[in-house]
Amino acid sequence: MANSNSVDQYRTTFVSYLEGKTKGKEPKNLYEPINYILGLGGKRLRPVLTLMTTDLFGGNPSDALDAALAIEVFHNFSLVHDDIMDDAPLRRGKTTVHEKWDVNTGILSGDAMLINSYQFLESYPSDVFKKLTALFSKTAIEVCEGQQYDVDFESRDDVTIPEYLKMIEYKTAVLVATAMKMGAIVAKASEDDTEAIYEFGKNLGIAFQLQDDYLDAFGDPKTFGKQVGGDIIENKKTFLYLKSLELAGQGKKEGLLHLYSIKPEDPEAKVTTVKSIFKESGAVEEAKTEISTYTQKAFDALSAINMPEQNKLMLKQFGENLMGRTV
Amino acid sequence: MANSNSVDQYRTTFVSYLEGKTKGKEPKNLYEPINYILGLGGKRLRPVLTLMTTDLFGGNPSDALDAALAIEVFHNFSLVHDDIMDDAPLRRGKTTVHEKWDVNTGILSGDAMLINSYQFLESYPSDVFKKLTALFSKTAIEVCEGQQYDVDFESRDDVTIPEYLKMIEYKTAVLVATAMKMGAIVAKASEDDTEAIYEFGKNLGIAFQLQDDYLDAFGDPKTFGKQVGGDIIENKKTFLYLKSLELAGQGKKEGLLHLYSIKPEDPEAKVTTVKSIFKESGAVEEAKTEISTYTQKAFDALSAINMPEQNKLMLKQFGENLMGRTV
Repeated sequence: MANSNSVDQYRTTFVSYLEGKTKGKEPKNLYEPINYILGLGGKRLRPVLTLMTTDLFGGNPSDALDAALAIEVFHNFSLVHDDIMDDAPLRRGKTTVHEKWDVNTGILSGDAMLINSYQFLESYPSDVFKKLTALFSKTAIEVCEGQQYDVDFESRDDVTIPEYLKMIEYKTAVLVATAMKMGAIVAKASEDDTEAIYEFGKNLGIAFQLQDDYLDAFGDPKTFGKQVGGDIIENKKTFLYLKSLELAGQGKKEGLLHLYSIKPEDPEAKVTTVKSIFKESGAVEEAKTEISTYTQKAFDALSAINMPEQNKLMLKQFGENLMGRTV
Repeated sequence: MANSNSVDQYRTTFVSYLEGKTKGKEPKNLYEPINYILGLGGKRLRPVLTLMTTDLFGGNPSDALDAALAIEVFHNFSLVHDDIMDDAPLRRGKTTVHEKWDVNTGILSGDAMLINSYQFLESYPSDVFKKLTALFSKTAIEVCEGQQYDVDFESRDDVTIPEYLKMIEYKTAVLVATAMKMGAIVAKASEDDTEAIYEFGKNLGIAFQLQDDYLDAFGDPKTFGKQVGGDIIENKKTFLYLKSLELAGQGKKEGLLHLYSIKPEDPEAKVTTVKSIFKESGAVEEAKTEISTYTQKAFDALSAINMPEQNKLMLKQFGENLMGRTV
């Protein structure tokens, strides 16, 4: 059964399993970039959630390793292709695949990772395989749709809050939800329970992404890991921006629209002004409320699940830890 | 049962099924490029082969429509991504997706097509679904590996004939083979029969690609459909080139190496000289022999199949028609 050390254990188990899978395949120019991105590390949040969920539903976490691998390799496929689309030079502090090699290598290695992720599921018997694969495809398509909405939003000036929430749900939250639901499927949990754990993961994922938006503007530069103010500098239409446009008076609204149409060389003054609009408009308070609401929705989804109370507590604690970055 | 009009019937059935699947999905910027490339037409060779194979093995061709769709959508995914990598402006005489929209759209729409192709297989029961999906993934990975070998060969000067044959097998032939094998699986053919029809498709696919290499240099401009001499102009290392290097004397060999290091503005003289080296070295004769050998291998694979002789004859005639372009 899962205990407080389990997260580290799941991660260690997963990483050594992953390393065993990334040996010298040919052609090198296809597989070296794949091993590179998979070796860059990261929190391995999604595969850890898969193993943990199997464990908490009374299954054997080692049975969930291939599902966890599918999720992690898919996640890295999406990073490689997104980094090309965003022209991003760095990922986890290291050179991105298309920068280290070239765009064509990024495209083709990404394609191979997407296909590989389906192949990892082949170790499951036909009925489980079909359940996992259908869920996986549905989620994968939603991730693509979320990415497309994100791209579309850049050139639109009429994005609504519900549209924004749908975008982050698709682009981020459904993969977290699916990581957990796959763990439940592997553990042979009931339909209702697999659906409830999906809701837990999805709502926690939305809360996490909204918090990420908040921390991008108001986080502690020492602990946040990314450049604080980065979204503002890039004119990214986050929850805080969209909500401010909704709540701010005409003057502030026009000021904000103007600031999001420019990219000054020294962005400091812009970041400061935008942050004060975010606060004064009441958007920051609204964001905090939304984060609490989605976190609570996630916790509420746990109540109906057929699982020892102790295990539900573990999931709740995991959620609280995840959300425990300074809000 | 299949008859001589069947190919057109399979194509008509398939195209109307395809059209029913490509309706207004959201987000538009993701799905419009997909509908565009799928609507460009083409011979629909692969899905026709899937329906035909199901029919010839005594199954109902309409049961094979989703497998045929998976194959065709995958094929078009690979065209979209390959066209980005090759920086190709035209596909089937029309603007390529990344030219009509942009590279990012081509990447993301291609990704969605790859995922969609897996989803079409979900209409089959678990055991058939797993067989089809595992075969599909194995083939999809080989197509990626074939594309990588093709890219690698551009910058290598030591490509061998066996390496070249493996590249065309992976990049082209295995998808033809899989289109047929899926048809056999849908018809519940035996393991031996599904494997034999795969060998038929694979060898016919290799023969077809070798013939394409030959016709690219020596075909009739009126019927070939692509620019005759295109491979020579692009310094593409085809069978004819590699075999000429093997067979030609030192002088001709050096001449050929030189001609494949330049791209003259008016390529006519280069094309003429290269073609004469291809002929005089004996490479053309060798190519014709290889084409016959692979075609014969394909026909030999039919003999062991458990199927009415009349149906085997249909497959042979189909192969002969396919190879009947002026060799």
